[in-house]
Amino acid sequence: MVTPRYFEDWSVGDRFETASLAITRDDIVRFAREFDPQPFHLDDAAGAASVFGSLCASGWHTASIAMKLIVETGAFSSDGVVGLGIEMLRWLSPVRPGDELSVLCIVAATRATRRPESGIVTFDNVVRTHVHNAMTYEAAVLIPRRPSIV
Amino acid sequence: MVTPRYFEDWSVGDRFETASLAITRDDIVRFAREFDPQPFHLDDAAGAASVFGSLCASGWHTASIAMKLIVETGAFSSDGVVGLGIEMLRWLSPVRPGDELSVLCIVAATRATRRPESGIVTFDNVVRTHVHNAMTYEAAVLIPRRPSIV
Repeated sequence: MVTPRYFEDWSVGDRFETASLAITRDDIVRFAREFDPQPFHLDDAAGAASVFGSLCASGWHTASIAMKLIVETGAFSSDGVVGLGIEMLRWLSPVRPGDELSVLCIVAATRATRRPESGIVTFDNVVRTHVHNAMTYEAAVLIPRRPSIV
Repeated sequence: MVTPRYFEDWSVGDRFETASLAITRDDIVRFAREFDPQPFHLDDAAGAASVFGSLCASGWHTASIAMKLIVETGAFSSDGVVGLGIEMLRWLSPVRPGDELSVLCIVAATRATRRPESGIVTFDNVVRTHVHNAMTYEAAVLIPRRPSIV
């Protein structure tokens, strides 16, 4: 848990890390049934026969868990953080049952715009397991400015 | 439903459309509780007070539904389709309860590599509701080559 920050509070190079979360086989299969019903996300034998070498999580599942971990840090104000877009998302290595996921977030850029109520912060995010980097991406988000005290 | 295709079967400009799926308020809240617990994804009043003007879906939820719709077309062989990365993902407009989502997929590039068993196809994908484009992205995926007949 870190202190909520407004747009003015973020500077290039700032970094924070999330808590970690273990992903289970049941989590992987449940997400895959609903959103990515491919054999290597659903079935151990199919996973073992695939390029991944075992059952592994949907890449969208990994991305969604990263979002959860980031939101749960409390790093953003209660007004929330609005995603504008993603660049350079790479799924680097499979996420397997039992992997512990956490995210390292580093501010790559801040951009003030004519919007009076918010600015844009770009984060370089690394989703890591206890053994390797699973996914990297650059996320551009709208972050509210600090409310003015009149 | 379209015929499963191997790497050799895809050409630049090929396109297909998925079926459509209606997203419900319950779907939105359930996904948000698990993966993106921000007020405007959880609560009608908070959504109304937000930049979105109403409760709306997590962008990762929209992306995950797009994956589901794409897999369910049957356009890819039973060996599946392995995501390598995403570029230029843009969340263009909010997805609200009752919206009907579908995806238009257009081949932007094909790339044969030294991998004997697969090639890379890049798709430009547009996730649409019945009223607007909700999300666009470019997805690079590994697609198996047609098995050789010996």
